[in-house]
Amino acid sequence: MGSDNPASAENQQERLIRIGWVIGFVDGEGCFSIGFVRQPNRRSRRGYKTGFQVSHSFVVVQGAASVSALHELADFFGVGSVGINRRHDNHKEDLYRYTVARRDDLLRVIIPFFEQHPLRTAKQADFEKFWECVELCKAGRHLTTTGLIEIARITETMNHRKPRTHLIRILRGHTPNTLDAG
Amino acid sequence: MGSDNPASAENQQERLIRIGWVIGFVDGEGCFSIGFVRQPNRRSRRGYKTGFQVSHSFVVVQGAASVSALHELADFFGVGSVGINRRHDNHKEDLYRYTVARRDDLLRVIIPFFEQHPLRTAKQADFEKFWECVELCKAGRHLTTTGLIEIARITETMNHRKPRTHLIRILRGHTPNTLDAG
Repeated sequence: MGSDNPASAENQQERLIRIGWVIGFVDGEGCFSIGFVRQPNRRSRRGYKTGFQVSHSFVVVQGAASVSALHELADFFGVGSVGINRRHDNHKEDLYRYTVARRDDLLRVIIPFFEQHPLRTAKQADFEKFWECVELCKAGRHLTTTGLIEIARITETMNHRKPRTHLIRILRGHTPNTLDAG
Repeated sequence: MGSDNPASAENQQERLIRIGWVIGFVDGEGCFSIGFVRQPNRRSRRGYKTGFQVSHSFVVVQGAASVSALHELADFFGVGSVGINRRHDNHKEDLYRYTVARRDDLLRVIIPFFEQHPLRTAKQADFEKFWECVELCKAGRHLTTTGLIEIARITETMNHRKPRTHLIRILRGHTPNTLDAG
Protein backbone atom coordinates (compact mmCIF):
# COMPACT_ATOMS: atom_id res chain seq x y z
CA MET A 1 0.00 0.00 0.00
CA GLY A 2 1.19 3.51 -0.77
CA SER A 3 1.13 6.59 1.39
CA ASP A 4 -2.30 7.51 -0.09
CA ASN A 5 -3.80 5.02 2.33
CA PRO A 6 -4.35 6.91 5.61
CA ALA A 7 -4.18 3.74 7.77
CA SER A 8 -0.91 2.78 6.09
CA ALA A 9 0.48 6.28 6.56
CA GLU A 10 -0.39 6.11 10.26
CA ASN A 11 1.29 2.70 10.55
CA GLN A 12 4.35 4.10 8.83
CA GLN A 13 4.43 7.02 11.32
CA GLU A 14 4.06 4.60 14.23
CA ARG A 15 6.85 2.45 12.82
CA LEU A 16 9.27 5.38 12.54
CA ILE A 17 8.43 6.60 16.05
CA ARG A 18 8.97 3.05 17.33
CA ILE A 19 12.40 2.88 15.63
CA GLY A 20 13.30 6.15 17.33
CA TRP A 21 11.99 4.90 20.67
CA VAL A 22 14.21 1.80 20.44
CA ILE A 23 17.28 3.95 19.71
CA GLY A 24 16.52 6.33 22.59
CA PHE A 25 15.63 3.62 25.08
CA VAL A 26 18.82 1.71 24.28
CA ASP A 27 20.80 4.98 24.53
CA GLY A 28 19.46 5.19 28.06
CA GLU A 29 19.19 1.62 29.26
CA GLY A 30 21.01 -0.70 26.85
CA CYS A 31 24.28 -2.50 27.47
CA PHE A 32 26.58 -4.14 24.95
CA SER A 33 28.65 -6.57 26.94
CA ILE A 34 31.60 -8.89 26.27
CA GLY A 35 32.53 -11.39 28.98
CA PHE A 36 35.21 -13.99 29.55
CA VAL A 37 34.06 -17.23 31.14
CA ARG A 38 36.65 -19.62 32.50
CA GLN A 39 36.26 -23.17 31.20
CA PRO A 40 39.18 -24.90 33.00
CA ASN A 41 37.97 -28.50 32.70
CA ARG A 42 37.01 -28.50 29.06
CA ARG A 43 40.31 -27.71 27.34
CA SER A 44 40.14 -30.93 25.32
CA ARG A 45 36.88 -29.85 23.67
CA ARG A 46 36.85 -27.88 20.45
CA GLY A 47 36.56 -24.16 21.14
CA TYR A 48 37.83 -24.34 24.72
CA LYS A 49 41.55 -24.91 24.33
CA THR A 50 42.41 -21.40 25.58
CA GLY A 51 40.60 -22.20 28.84
CA PHE A 52 38.27 -19.24 28.29
CA GLN A 53 35.05 -18.78 26.42
CA VAL A 54 33.88 -15.38 25.16
CA SER A 55 30.28 -14.34 25.79
CA HIS A 56 28.61 -11.49 23.94
CA SER A 57 25.24 -10.06 24.82
CA PHE A 58 23.00 -7.10 24.21
CA VAL A 59 21.04 -6.51 27.42
CA VAL A 60 18.38 -4.08 28.65
CA VAL A 61 17.30 -4.28 32.32
CA GLN A 62 14.09 -2.84 33.81
CA GLY A 63 12.11 -3.15 37.01
CA ALA A 64 9.00 -5.35 37.07
CA ALA A 65 6.73 -2.30 36.58
CA SER A 66 8.34 -1.64 33.17
CA VAL A 67 8.68 -5.22 31.91
CA SER A 68 6.24 -4.40 29.06
CA ALA A 69 8.92 -2.11 27.57
CA LEU A 70 11.27 -5.13 27.40
CA HIS A 71 8.59 -7.19 25.65
CA GLU A 72 8.18 -4.30 23.20
CA LEU A 73 11.91 -4.56 22.42
CA ALA A 74 11.66 -8.36 22.03
CA ASP A 75 8.69 -7.97 19.65
CA PHE A 76 10.47 -5.24 17.71
CA PHE A 77 13.67 -7.22 17.13
CA GLY A 78 12.05 -10.68 16.93
CA VAL A 79 15.10 -12.25 18.62
CA GLY A 80 16.26 -12.66 22.21
CA SER A 81 14.11 -13.19 25.28
CA VAL A 82 12.87 -11.53 28.46
CA GLY A 83 13.64 -13.20 31.77
CA ILE A 84 14.01 -12.36 35.43
CA ASN A 85 17.38 -10.91 36.41
CA ARG A 86 19.38 -12.96 38.85
CA ARG A 87 21.06 -9.87 40.31
CA HIS A 88 18.85 -7.69 42.46
CA ASP A 89 21.33 -5.02 43.57
CA ASN A 90 19.14 -4.15 46.57
CA HIS A 91 16.33 -2.77 44.47
CA LYS A 92 12.86 -2.89 45.94
CA GLU A 93 11.28 -4.62 42.96
CA ASP A 94 12.23 -7.63 40.84
CA LEU A 95 14.40 -6.80 37.86
CA TYR A 96 13.87 -8.22 34.39
CA ARG A 97 16.25 -8.35 31.47
CA TYR A 98 15.89 -8.54 27.73
CA THR A 99 18.89 -10.47 26.40
CA VAL A 100 20.18 -11.25 22.92
CA ALA A 101 23.24 -13.46 23.25
CA ARG A 102 23.20 -15.75 20.18
CA ARG A 103 25.92 -14.66 17.78
CA ASP A 104 23.69 -15.22 14.75
CA ASP A 105 20.92 -13.01 16.22
CA LEU A 106 23.47 -10.29 16.98
CA LEU A 107 25.03 -10.42 13.51
CA ARG A 108 21.76 -10.73 11.61
CA VAL A 109 19.46 -8.38 13.58
CA ILE A 110 20.91 -6.29 16.42
CA ILE A 111 24.17 -5.09 14.85
CA PRO A 112 22.60 -4.18 11.46
CA PHE A 113 19.87 -2.18 13.25
CA PHE A 114 22.34 -0.06 15.20
CA GLU A 115 24.59 0.18 12.15
CA GLN A 116 21.66 1.77 10.28
CA HIS A 117 20.40 3.79 13.28
CA PRO A 118 23.37 5.03 15.34
CA LEU A 119 22.99 5.68 19.05
CA ARG A 120 23.25 9.35 20.06
CA THR A 121 25.14 8.99 23.34
CA ALA A 122 28.63 7.72 24.21
CA LYS A 123 27.07 4.24 24.11
CA GLN A 124 27.64 4.34 20.35
CA ALA A 125 31.38 3.87 21.00
CA ASP A 126 30.61 0.82 23.16
CA PHE A 127 28.41 -0.57 20.42
CA GLU A 128 31.20 -0.18 17.84
CA LYS A 129 33.67 -2.02 20.08
CA PHE A 130 31.09 -4.73 20.78
CA TRP A 131 30.52 -5.10 17.05
CA GLU A 132 34.30 -5.43 16.50
CA CYS A 133 34.50 -8.17 19.17
CA VAL A 134 31.56 -10.12 17.71
CA GLU A 135 33.17 -9.92 14.26
CA LEU A 136 36.44 -11.23 15.72
CA CYS A 137 34.48 -14.16 17.23
CA LYS A 138 32.76 -14.75 13.89
CA ALA A 139 36.23 -14.99 12.33
CA GLY A 140 37.25 -17.55 14.97
CA ARG A 141 39.80 -15.26 16.63
CA HIS A 142 38.35 -15.99 20.09
CA LEU A 143 39.60 -19.57 19.79
CA THR A 144 43.23 -18.44 19.92
CA THR A 145 45.13 -16.83 22.76
CA THR A 146 46.26 -13.88 20.65
CA GLY A 147 42.67 -13.31 19.53
CA LEU A 148 41.42 -13.46 23.11
CA ILE A 149 44.02 -10.89 24.14
CA GLU A 150 42.92 -8.68 21.24
CA ILE A 151 39.28 -8.94 22.40
CA ALA A 152 40.26 -8.32 26.04
CA ARG A 153 42.16 -5.17 24.98
CA ILE A 154 39.06 -3.84 23.18
CA THR A 155 36.78 -4.55 26.16
CA GLU A 156 39.11 -2.68 28.52
CA THR A 157 37.69 0.58 27.17
CA MET A 158 34.01 -0.49 27.11
CA ASN A 159 31.29 0.40 29.67
CA HIS A 160 33.76 2.17 32.02
CA ARG A 161 35.44 -1.19 32.59
CA LYS A 162 38.53 -1.75 34.61
CA PRO A 163 41.73 -2.91 32.89
CA ARG A 164 41.92 -6.57 31.87
CA THR A 165 45.55 -6.78 33.01
CA HIS A 166 45.09 -9.90 35.11
CA LEU A 167 43.20 -11.81 32.41
CA ILE A 168 45.72 -10.79 29.76
CA ARG A 169 48.65 -11.91 31.97
CA ILE A 170 46.98 -15.32 32.39
CA LEU A 171 46.38 -15.61 28.65
CA ARG A 172 50.02 -14.75 28.01
CA GLY A 173 51.11 -17.40 30.51
CA HIS A 174 52.81 -14.78 32.70
CA THR A 175 50.76 -15.60 35.79
CA PRO A 176 48.95 -18.66 37.17
CA ASN A 177 45.26 -18.91 36.29
CA THR A 178 43.51 -17.84 39.47
CA LEU A 179 40.45 -16.34 37.80
CA ASP A 180 37.03 -17.83 38.16
CA ALA A 181 35.69 -15.43 35.59
CA GLY A 182 37.50 -12.62 33.88
CA MET B 1 6.03 21.18 0.77
CA GLY B 2 4.17 17.91 0.29
CA SER B 3 5.45 14.37 0.62
CA ASP B 4 6.24 14.36 -3.13
CA ASN B 5 9.40 16.22 -2.28
CA PRO B 6 12.02 13.54 -1.47
CA ALA B 7 14.05 15.89 0.76
CA SER B 8 10.91 16.80 2.67
CA ALA B 9 9.93 13.12 3.04
CA GLU B 10 13.38 12.38 4.45
CA ASN B 11 13.06 15.30 6.88
CA GLN B 12 9.66 13.99 7.92
CA GLN B 13 11.17 10.52 8.55
CA GLU B 14 14.00 12.06 10.55
CA ARG B 15 11.51 14.11 12.54
CA LEU B 16 9.42 11.06 13.48
CA ILE B 17 12.50 9.04 14.43
CA ARG B 18 13.67 11.98 16.57
CA ILE B 19 10.29 12.15 18.33
CA GLY B 20 10.61 8.43 19.07
CA TRP B 21 14.19 8.87 20.27
CA VAL B 22 13.11 11.58 22.73
CA ILE B 23 10.35 9.31 24.14
CA GLY B 24 12.74 6.36 24.49
CA PHE B 25 15.61 8.38 25.94
CA VAL B 26 13.31 9.96 28.52
CA ASP B 27 11.85 6.51 29.30
CA GLY B 28 15.41 5.51 30.14
CA GLU B 29 17.00 8.62 31.61
CA GLY B 30 14.34 11.23 32.31
CA CYS B 31 13.10 12.32 35.72
CA PHE B 32 9.94 14.27 36.58
CA SER B 33 10.60 15.75 39.97
CA ILE B 34 8.58 17.72 42.54
CA GLY B 35 10.49 19.22 45.49
CA PHE B 36 9.66 21.18 48.61
CA VAL B 37 12.05 23.96 49.50
CA ARG B 38 11.87 25.52 52.94
CA GLN B 39 11.57 29.32 52.89
CA PRO B 40 11.44 30.04 56.61
CA ASN B 41 12.45 33.70 56.53
CA ARG B 42 10.19 34.86 53.74
CA ARG B 43 6.73 34.15 55.17
CA SER B 44 5.71 37.77 54.79
CA ARG B 45 6.26 37.65 51.01
CA ARG B 46 3.47 36.68 48.66
CA GLY B 47 3.68 32.98 47.78
CA TYR B 48 5.70 31.99 50.82
CA LYS B 49 3.22 32.14 53.68
CA THR B 50 3.18 28.32 54.07
CA GLY B 51 6.96 28.42 54.71
CA PHE B 52 7.55 26.09 51.76
CA GLN B 53 7.96 26.61 48.06
CA VAL B 54 7.22 23.88 45.52
CA SER B 55 9.75 23.22 42.78
CA HIS B 56 8.93 21.25 39.64
CA SER B 57 11.47 20.11 37.08
CA PHE B 58 11.95 17.78 34.17
CA VAL B 59 15.57 16.60 34.25
CA VAL B 60 17.82 14.32 32.19
CA VAL B 61 21.36 13.65 33.44
CA GLN B 62 24.28 12.31 31.37
CA GLY B 63 28.03 11.97 31.69
CA ALA B 64 30.25 14.48 29.90
CA ALA B 65 30.82 12.04 27.01
CA SER B 66 27.10 12.14 26.18
CA VAL B 67 26.41 15.83 26.73
CA SER B 68 25.54 16.17 23.02
CA ALA B 69 22.43 14.06 23.65
CA LEU B 70 21.30 16.65 26.23
CA HIS B 71 21.84 19.46 23.73
CA GLU B 72 19.77 17.45 21.24
CA LEU B 73 16.93 17.40 23.79
CA ALA B 74 17.31 21.14 24.43
CA ASP B 75 17.20 21.84 20.68
CA PHE B 76 14.20 19.56 20.24
CA PHE B 77 12.08 21.15 22.97
CA GLY B 78 13.39 24.71 22.54
CA VAL B 79 13.08 25.32 26.30
CA GLY B 80 15.26 24.55 29.32
CA SER B 81 19.03 24.49 29.50
CA VAL B 82 22.05 22.22 29.83
CA GLY B 83 24.41 22.77 32.76
CA ILE B 84 26.92 20.93 34.84
CA ASN B 85 25.43 18.80 37.63
CA ARG B 86 26.43 19.81 41.13
CA ARG B 87 26.10 16.23 42.41
CA HIS B 88 28.83 13.88 41.30
CA ASP B 89 27.82 10.68 43.10
CA ASN B 90 31.37 9.34 42.82
CA HIS B 91 31.26 8.98 39.07
CA LYS B 92 34.52 9.17 37.19
CA GLU B 93 33.38 11.85 34.77
CA ASP B 94 31.57 15.16 35.17
CA LEU B 95 27.81 14.91 34.97
CA TYR B 96 25.62 17.29 33.01
CA ARG B 97 21.90 17.90 33.30
CA TYR B 98 19.22 19.16 30.98
CA THR B 99 16.63 20.95 33.11
CA VAL B 100 13.25 22.47 32.38
CA ALA B 101 11.94 24.07 35.59
CA ARG B 102 9.89 27.10 34.48
CA ARG B 103 6.20 26.34 34.96
CA ASP B 104 5.25 28.01 31.70
CA ASP B 105 7.78 25.90 29.72
CA LEU B 106 6.47 22.74 31.39
CA LEU B 107 2.81 23.61 30.69
CA ARG B 108 3.36 24.89 27.18
CA VAL B 109 5.97 22.43 25.83
CA ILE B 110 7.02 19.46 27.97
CA ILE B 111 3.64 18.30 29.31
CA PRO B 112 1.81 18.58 25.95
CA PHE B 113 4.59 16.57 24.25
CA PHE B 114 4.34 13.66 26.69
CA GLU B 115 0.54 13.96 26.69
CA GLN B 116 0.64 13.39 22.92
CA HIS B 117 3.46 10.81 23.05
CA PRO B 118 3.10 8.65 26.17
CA LEU B 119 6.14 7.05 27.76
CA ARG B 120 6.27 3.26 27.52
CA THR B 121 7.73 2.43 30.93
CA ALA B 122 6.47 2.89 34.49
CA LYS B 123 7.83 6.45 34.18
CA GLN B 124 4.52 7.32 32.49
CA ALA B 125 2.82 7.07 35.91
CA ASP B 126 5.41 9.47 37.37
CA PHE B 127 4.79 11.88 34.49
CA GLU B 128 1.02 11.81 35.11
CA LYS B 129 1.53 12.59 38.82
CA PHE B 130 4.01 15.35 37.94
CA TRP B 131 1.49 16.81 35.51
CA GLU B 132 -1.18 16.76 38.24
CA CYS B 133 1.16 18.60 40.64
CA VAL B 134 2.07 21.26 38.07
CA GLU B 135 -1.63 21.81 37.34
CA LEU B 136 -2.27 22.20 41.08
CA CYS B 137 0.49 24.83 41.21
CA LYS B 138 -0.99 26.56 38.16
CA ALA B 139 -4.29 26.73 40.06
CA GLY B 140 -2.47 28.29 43.04
CA ARG B 141 -3.07 25.31 45.34
CA HIS B 142 0.61 25.27 46.34
CA LEU B 143 0.12 28.58 48.13
CA THR B 144 -2.14 26.96 50.73
CA THR B 145 -1.28 24.39 53.35
CA THR B 146 -4.03 21.99 52.25
CA GLY B 147 -2.81 22.26 48.66
CA LEU B 148 0.79 21.59 49.71
CA ILE B 149 -0.35 18.50 51.63
CA GLU B 150 -2.26 17.35 48.53
CA ILE B 151 0.89 17.79 46.40
CA ALA B 152 3.06 16.05 49.04
CA ARG B 153 0.66 13.08 49.06
CA ILE B 154 0.93 12.74 45.26
CA THR B 155 4.74 12.90 45.33
CA GLU B 156 4.91 10.14 47.96
CA THR B 157 4.27 7.62 45.18
CA MET B 158 6.61 9.17 42.58
CA ASN B 159 10.13 8.00 41.67
CA HIS B 160 10.23 5.31 44.42
CA ARG B 161 10.13 8.12 46.97
CA LYS B 162 9.89 7.67 50.68
CA PRO B 163 6.76 8.81 52.52
CA ARG B 164 6.36 12.56 53.10
CA THR B 165 5.05 11.91 56.62
CA HIS B 166 7.41 14.39 58.31
CA LEU B 167 6.71 17.22 55.85
CA ILE B 168 2.96 16.63 56.07
CA ARG B 169 3.07 16.66 59.90
CA ILE B 170 4.89 20.01 59.78
CA LEU B 171 2.36 21.42 57.30
CA ARG B 172 -0.48 20.28 59.56
CA GLY B 173 1.21 21.96 62.54
CA HIS B 174 1.52 18.62 64.37
CA THR B 175 5.27 18.81 64.71
CA PRO B 176 7.86 21.61 64.92
CA ASN B 177 9.44 22.61 61.62
CA THR B 178 12.85 20.96 61.71
CA LEU B 179 13.20 20.46 57.97
CA ASP B 180 15.77 22.24 55.92
CA ALA B 181 14.25 20.82 52.76
CA GLY B 182 11.43 18.31 52.46
